[in-house]
Amino acid sequence: MYEGPVQDLIDELGRLPGVGPKSAQRIAFHLLGVEPADIGRLQAALQRIRDGVQFCTICGTVSEKELCRICADSRRDRAVICVVEEPKDVQAVERTREFHGRYHVLGGALDPLSGVGPEQLRIRELLARLGNQSDGVDVSEVIIATDPNTEGEATATYLVRMMRDFPGLVVTRLASGLPMGGDLEFADEVTLGRALSGRRAM
Amino acid sequence: MYEGPVQDLIDELGRLPGVGPKSAQRIAFHLLGVEPADIGRLQAALQRIRDGVQFCTICGTVSEKELCRICADSRRDRAVICVVEEPKDVQAVERTREFHGRYHVLGGALDPLSGVGPEQLRIRELLARLGNQSDGVDVSEVIIATDPNTEGEATATYLVRMMRDFPGLVVTRLASGLPMGGDLEFADEVTLGRALSGRRAM
Repeated sequence: MYEGPVQDLIDELGRLPGVGPKSAQRIAFHLLGVEPADIGRLQAALQRIRDGVQFCTICGTVSEKELCRICADSRRDRAVICVVEEPKDVQAVERTREFHGRYHVLGGALDPLSGVGPEQLRIRELLARLGNQSDGVDVSEVIIATDPNTEGEATATYLVRMMRDFPGLVVTRLASGLPMGGDLEFADEVTLGRALSGRRAM
Repeated sequence: MYEGPVQDLIDELGRLPGVGPKSAQRIAFHLLGVEPADIGRLQAALQRIRDGVQFCTICGTVSEKELCRICADSRRDRAVICVVEEPKDVQAVERTREFHGRYHVLGGALDPLSGVGPEQLRIRELLARLGNQSDGVDVSEVIIATDPNTEGEATATYLVRMMRDFPGLVVTRLASGLPMGGDLEFADEVTLGRALSGRRAM
């Protein structure tokens, strides 16, 4: 629709997730009006991502150094590992301030239809951490915090089976149930069913 | 929240209009997973914008050459000029396929509180086009298509006053009224008032 570089930029922006044609146009015209240095900062940030991002050699989350801040923090409990799908899930659990152990990022969830099998996830690395902690601390609990959807549940089931043979290891799963602040009337039947079956004495 | 380059990119993306922290995070992790060449295309598109975009020397819209496609098109009626605020408004009018004249892009609307006065808009260039068409065709009509809001209305009023002295020139304004597909019940009172005062015999 537009001519030359403006349309090229709109096209490229429109390829980003969650950026529709209208947003792409809005961002492009915004960038037409900003200081060149502002565009330069965005370009530089893209270049650093393009140069490759480092991942923590222990947990696999995005990291600035060989070890991420959490794995490098000696105050974190090395006996508990929380297994999540993606680095953004690490941030979600951190925001609760309820977890003081370390993480393991799988890099996704089992999804055979999309070609994601156990080999594509960091499952071997997880099992290696359980068998052989370099600092000699035994892992006593693995909390499986994959998403509460089909792929996440399948991944959780698979992980439980793989970790059955580690003696003394407790494997737990995040509770499913009604979200806080939600409305019982509007809960879907699967969530309400989980809330029922997971009910606790009080 | 994240470490190093990923957080830098999230910060930069979050500065773009309409991109919140969640979207910025989603885009950043998307870019972590794509081919470097895909990031390269986005970088190159940004660079071309940064190098400067050309504007049509007649109408002022973004253009690849000295004249935009519309001003360079000899089939477009040179006697009618549609005055819009921004290049994206040119595209909006073009999509109707109802207008066959040429455009004039003001580059905004009068907004004294934000420091936009007549000098900041391409009003002088518009008056010059009326007085002196290089191809000898007299402009017979100027359609003012600024936005139907306070700034756009103020700009329209100002333009009408400035063009009062051109003999034989008809200055028109886009109709205000109920949007098609809309619901009379939900129309705001200003829109409905405009629709009433602008009613047409049928």
